Amino acid sequence: MAETSEADSQGSYVNPGGEFSRDQRYIATRITEDGRDGYPVEPGRYRLVVSRACPWASRAVIVRRLLGLEDALSMGITGPTHDKRSWTFDLDPGGVDPVLGIERIQDAYFARFPGYERGITVPAIVDTTTGQVVTNDYAPMTIDLSTQWRAHHRPGAPDLYPQALRAEIDEVNKGVFTDVNNGVYKCGFAGSQRAYDASYRRLFARLDELSARLAGQRYLVGDTITEADIRLFTTLVRFDAVYHGHFKCNRSKLTEMPVLWAYARDLFMTPGFGDTVDFDHIKRHYYEVHRDINPTGIVPLGPDLSGWLTPHGREALGGRPFGDGTPPGPVRPDETVPPEHTPLGS
Amino acid sequence: MAETSEADSQGSYVNPGGEFSRDQRYIATRITEDGRDGYPVEPGRYRLVVSRACPWASRAVIVRRLLGLEDALSMGITGPTHDKRSWTFDLDPGGVDPVLGIERIQDAYFARFPGYERGITVPAIVDTTTGQVVTNDYAPMTIDLSTQWRAHHRPGAPDLYPQALRAEIDEVNKGVFTDVNNGVYKCGFAGSQRAYDASYRRLFARLDELSARLAGQRYLVGDTITEADIRLFTTLVRFDAVYHGHFKCNRSKLTEMPVLWAYARDLFMTPGFGDTVDFDHIKRHYYEVHRDINPTGIVPLGPDLSGWLTPHGREALGGRPFGDGTPPGPVRPDETVPPEHTPLGS
Repeated sequence: MAETSEADSQGSYVNPGGEFSRDQRYIATRITEDGRDGYPVEPGRYRLVVSRACPWASRAVIVRRLLGLEDALSMGITGPTHDKRSWTFDLDPGGVDPVLGIERIQDAYFARFPGYERGITVPAIVDTTTGQVVTNDYAPMTIDLSTQWRAHHRPGAPDLYPQALRAEIDEVNKGVFTDVNNGVYKCGFAGSQRAYDASYRRLFARLDELSARLAGQRYLVGDTITEADIRLFTTLVRFDAVYHGHFKCNRSKLTEMPVLWAYARDLFMTPGFGDTVDFDHIKRHYYEVHRDINPTGIVPLGPDLSGWLTPHGREALGGRPFGDGTPPGPVRPDETVPPEHTPLGS
Repeated sequence: MAETSEADSQGSYVNPGGEFSRDQRYIATRITEDGRDGYPVEPGRYRLVVSRACPWASRAVIVRRLLGLEDALSMGITGPTHDKRSWTFDLDPGGVDPVLGIERIQDAYFARFPGYERGITVPAIVDTTTGQVVTNDYAPMTIDLSTQWRAHHRPGAPDLYPQALRAEIDEVNKGVFTDVNNGVYKCGFAGSQRAYDASYRRLFARLDELSARLAGQRYLVGDTITEADIRLFTTLVRFDAVYHGHFKCNRSKLTEMPVLWAYARDLFMTPGFGDTVDFDHIKRHYYEVHRDINPTGIVPLGPDLSGWLTPHGREALGGRPFGDGTPPGPVRPDETVPPEHTPLGS
């Protein structure tokens, strides 16, 4: 997540008087079939480090699970909060990632780039043979999981980035990134009323446009789940829990936008989506970490999440969720979201 | 409003580590028929000073209008925000109340009590013959408007505090004050997670109880509008605009609690209620003044308020809104809420 890079050296997210600007300088090294950047795809060699709080990392969590890459690419999960010194493995015994043997993801960054000064973010992929971070560039990361790691996908893995639809997926993703994925942050971390107002209007204009698009079709592009749906889902699933109140994205709740709410519930109940979502981590991260917009650090008890499991009726629109593929199997026991952190629990 | 008294001398509303405690020491002097406290009811002598942002002051605004006391008791309206030196008349030409000739309500407090150290709050009633505040004790204030000012009520004024129902009204008011009117503040200004959690649970338990009560009857007590409805309304009308997000009262929006939402809309569309509500003042007050929970001072553009005017269907429950009386006439031109501040506008 670009979380830590969003804060300046004082731990501030808001730039007073101005607008929020995401530091988009990531480590662009890619892991590819041909290993052109020095990092060939190799099962068991890399470790994906995520926070379940983070929407950018959650894309990778979902894609990895939909594609069945669990055996090929292990996953480390940080705790929901962090300080200026980056995300920690405080959920693990002794506070140490069992594979990497480190307490903080920054250790993997510094192993590769001593004195690294950009954002220490998740998702990050670490080379377990050296302990060095390979990449934290979340946008190409999920595309590469779909396209470069194909040899290690599970049987029945869906094609999340079909060749014939890439231009359309990229186009949709562009608007969703600017106005929605990043748009909610621009609302929440706006340093002026003018910056906030502009971002709020763009956000809801885009959501209205997406609602209209999704009123008559089950998924954003084509008739199957693609990368575009994953990227929209990770913001929608956080909308009422954090963006609506904490980030002041409050024209209406997701629950009050009928098409998007049904669309989000449809995905939530699809294996690989809702079963990766930890609402406790999401709420604790945003409310505890962003002290400059929530100085008390108090985490709201709401919203009521039971609505996530109500019938959505989207099957009537047709669509083939996994195309010619199949849904993923059950979540691995060691990667299960604690039942008390999700309406899917128990 | 007890707003200024809620802040300590540093302008802080939150008491770190503890719970929010409302300073309930008000000036208990009463204006009565018999003038036992030295202030007899006398038309034209007193001025009610309010902020439309404030739920406590809004009770008095509604009661004054329902009872038709506009000629007997004039009204000064402060701007929506204030600093540590109290509410100002910045909406008036030259920033001076045209009747009292003062810039700040604190001047009327100091005129009576030099060096007054408790909260400088609205609603306050000022004696225009001396420029001194008489009372800011909002709870008895509205009851006295109903019972002591009866000789000056309009023809057809409703009985908002009927003798036979007083015990029941008082009982309902007690629970509503503790868990709802003041409960939302205890959520918003909680200094610890434990204090917040407890207040949130009491708030929604009480709202659920009120929902159940109102499912089969149109008003809280008896079959007409009473003081009890006014006190609940002033919190409900602010719920989604400020309490839901800013005060973290976010189990659900008012719009997601069907009985209470219909009940609130019914009252909102009743003359004397919605026509006193200024959503712009409400939002600006809470978000701009409480910097310790909203340091940026940014005011959300939401929520969408158009739902306030949708049919509520509560007529089917019967009830006689004004009992043997009649609705109040139109709002005076000089007391009209700016149309851009309300869904009733234009």
